[in-house]
Amino acid sequence: MLEELKERVLKANLDLVKNKLVLFTWGNVSEIDRKSKLIVIKPSGVSYDEMTADDLVVVDLDGKVVEGKLRPSSDTPTHIEFYKAFPNIGGVTHTHSTFATAWAQAGRSIPFYGTTHADYFYGDIPCARSLTKEEIEGDYEKNTGLAIIEKFREDCLNPIEVPGVLIKSHGVFAFGKDADGSVYNATVIEEVAKMAFLTEQINPTVTRADRFMMDKHYLRKHGKNAYYGQKK
Amino acid sequence: MLEELKERVLKANLDLVKNKLVLFTWGNVSEIDRKSKLIVIKPSGVSYDEMTADDLVVVDLDGKVVEGKLRPSSDTPTHIEFYKAFPNIGGVTHTHSTFATAWAQAGRSIPFYGTTHADYFYGDIPCARSLTKEEIEGDYEKNTGLAIIEKFREDCLNPIEVPGVLIKSHGVFAFGKDADGSVYNATVIEEVAKMAFLTEQINPTVTRADRFMMDKHYLRKHGKNAYYGQKK
Amino acid sequence: MLEELKERVLKANLDLVKNKLVLFTWGNVSEIDRKSKLIVIKPSGVSYDEMTADDLVVVDLDGKVVEGKLRPSSDTPTHIEFYKAFPNIGGVTHTHSTFATAWAQAGRSIPFYGTTHADYFYGDIPCARSLTKEEIEGDYEKNTGLAIIEKFREDCLNPIEVPGVLIKSHGVFAFGKDADGSVYNATVIEEVAKMAFLTEQINPTVTRADRFMMDKHYLRKHGKNAYYGQKK
Amino acid sequence: MLEELKERVLKANLDLVKNKLVLFTWGNVSEIDRKSKLIVIKPSGVSYDEMTADDLVVVDLDGKVVEGKLRPSSDTPTHIEFYKAFPNIGGVTHTHSTFATAWAQAGRSIPFYGTTHADYFYGDIPCARSLTKEEIEGDYEKNTGLAIIEKFREDCLNPIEVPGVLIKSHGVFAFGKDADGSVYNATVIEEVAKMAFLTEQINPTVTRADRFMMDKHYLRKHGKNAYYGQKK
Repeated sequence: MLEELKERVLKANLDLVKNKLVLFTWGNVSEIDRKSKLIVIKPSGVSYDEMTADDLVVVDLDGKVVEGKLRPSSDTPTHIEFYKAFPNIGGVTHTHSTFATAWAQAGRSIPFYGTTHADYFYGDIPCARSLTKEEIEGDYEKNTGLAIIEKFREDCLNPIEVPGVLIKSHGVFAFGKDADGSVYNATVIEEVAKMAFLTEQINPTVTRADRFMMDKHYLRKHGKNAYYGQKK
Repeated sequence: MLEELKERVLKANLDLVKNKLVLFTWGNVSEIDRKSKLIVIKPSGVSYDEMTADDLVVVDLDGKVVEGKLRPSSDTPTHIEFYKAFPNIGGVTHTHSTFATAWAQAGRSIPFYGTTHADYFYGDIPCARSLTKEEIEGDYEKNTGLAIIEKFREDCLNPIEVPGVLIKSHGVFAFGKDADGSVYNATVIEEVAKMAFLTEQINPTVTRADRFMMDKHYLRKHGKNAYYGQKK
Repeated sequence: MLEELKERVLKANLDLVKNKLVLFTWGNVSEIDRKSKLIVIKPSGVSYDEMTADDLVVVDLDGKVVEGKLRPSSDTPTHIEFYKAFPNIGGVTHTHSTFATAWAQAGRSIPFYGTTHADYFYGDIPCARSLTKEEIEGDYEKNTGLAIIEKFREDCLNPIEVPGVLIKSHGVFAFGKDADGSVYNATVIEEVAKMAFLTEQINPTVTRADRFMMDKHYLRKHGKNAYYGQKK
Repeated sequence: MLEELKERVLKANLDLVKNKLVLFTWGNVSEIDRKSKLIVIKPSGVSYDEMTADDLVVVDLDGKVVEGKLRPSSDTPTHIEFYKAFPNIGGVTHTHSTFATAWAQAGRSIPFYGTTHADYFYGDIPCARSLTKEEIEGDYEKNTGLAIIEKFREDCLNPIEVPGVLIKSHGVFAFGKDADGSVYNATVIEEVAKMAFLTEQINPTVTRADRFMMDKHYLRKHGKNAYYGQKK
């Protein structure tokens, strides 16, 4: 079932290691097949060194395991909420990458300081609030997704234009058109997080870059009249 | 004698290099065989490039060499105190890993700032006091162990729940069920130390994360009702 | 056409990856053949893993593609302005390397703090102003080049003596006698940017090093009586 | 001539790359044969990738090239002053390693903050003054050595007990019993420089560690009654 998708999700999970976004098993990637409404996701706590496509787990949008011998990632309910709330995304990545997680622990959104940021994010990389005691003691992983979705709704954010988010005291979730795209954006977030940290150290009174620069850089790559890269 | 254990302890020592926790010979790992009350430990000052299982040293709980051609690690008396005081641990790792050692040199415990920390440590990573002149000029390595054990007693800490500690102006000791587990925890400490440093740089007024978040994350991985990873 | 030059420009682009100056496709290198007035440049948005010499694009000084199946780098108009304004350069590199980009985002020139800097830069590494709304919404990439050239004119800088520049909220451009030389200087800028960041952290009241030290170090490598390296 | 020594000095120079202490050609190592009073040193500006034992240069204590087709390192006069002033050293390393150079650019000695430092340095790692205009415009490289020797004399330092030094606005010189030992100490300096930087960031009011801890750690490795490592 979904063999080709499993291979892609396996590769995307291994790219977390290659791109130095995870230590041990601290991350996971999924992709949804929108036709069958089935999600392929990493199994929980399995080492990247040993993981094969067969180890990946297929779940439906209710979180029921449809295929697979192993338990799915404990973060599966968070992924599911994203796929339900954001119909235009196809892949989700979760990491505890070092610099981005430091911003999450600091409880701060990553401000737009330059074109590297604007090439992929059309606005700050937001930091969602921490969960309440009730949310944590209840359906924790699901509520993590809901708190993030709440942030996107309140700030009128589009997960294609702002394809990633921090959650306070925790880590990173990144979105993409597919698994691979979400890993790409998670990689961008880590680099942008490192640059923003350094920027503030070098100039503690720095302010955001100009809005019209953000428009230019985001839109030359992603807008209707994008001219970066090759014609497709 | 204890050939299988020696192979495991050798691998654990080499993982210190693989996980980038040591420069040159600056670290050591041991594991105890609780039945025979014998400890296998790295020899002193031997390069990781050349070390074989045969070079490992077997000592008893009095520090007497039972087998081995080489001198055991000069930190052996510290390891022995941990095995005597903490019957529930089976492995000990000592490192001077960069970020964790900087916290030790700063004389500060690493505050709980997020879930990466709480997935492995049920509380701050404590920093034990520096030794007195008498303790240092006396049985120094033994007294290092005793100062750490004193810290665990005073703060009512359990080395399974808080499987690692800093000692002021020195470095890191990590605990585990076996040698491999203690290296794993030493690796976590280094990453958490780096994240906590960055967190405070990004937000100098940051405070600890919520206690109920710590409960949730620690217990979903380690509690009676843990649901992270695969059933064993 | 220009096959040997293409091989050199390919190698220079791949050195960006080897020297850890780029993530994904975030950089580009070109070299001009001054006789034919033709420029060889990286294609836009093509992965370094897959790029071959055949993928490189030949453009003239009006930006017209003379040879090549792919679109040239979107930064081509910036490169062209440099080749037109600075007749003594032969190669241009653009990167978003981490530490140098942080200085650009901070909007600060990199001060001369030591001999590593002076071995290659005869003065601060300047930071050009950010573009106006009109400049960004107009011919953006061309205007980027013009703003940098304006900075060199106003400060009386020579792109051979100061072979690199930051542009506010964006990144780095480096110059050289050829493609390879510009990558070399981009690599120096990143290292000098990291050292200068650390220098200010270690001593917040640090001031520039002595001018006569800059003279000595720059001139022993680059002046008429240079004595560093081998006779040529 | 001195073939075995050349092989050792070649290996020591290549270890600069392996230990990540140099970018491009920014470093050099030499060793003296005390019997013949001849020094083997790296040639100036030659890439580490291409260097062979044959490229190394043999010079005498007057700086005269005794053997070798290439120019010796431009820093040769500095090395010679050290061999003349410090009869107990046999090897010298010069680097611009990142963190140590940042301390040099900051113009600060690296304070003794912990046992990693004291295992190799019996006191702060000193920072020698910057040179005067006259010293720089005169016999610059020789005067660099003399300023460092002046620092050791004034502070009563022994280059075996304090086997390395920073020079303001420049970089690092490390000493050892032979070429390999000096590279080892240069590697220690870089790691200790990084740890000390982080220590001050984590605790801006940190003070030096206790003197009796320095005595203990230095002497258990280097004193008459040293017990670290294996008997020799």
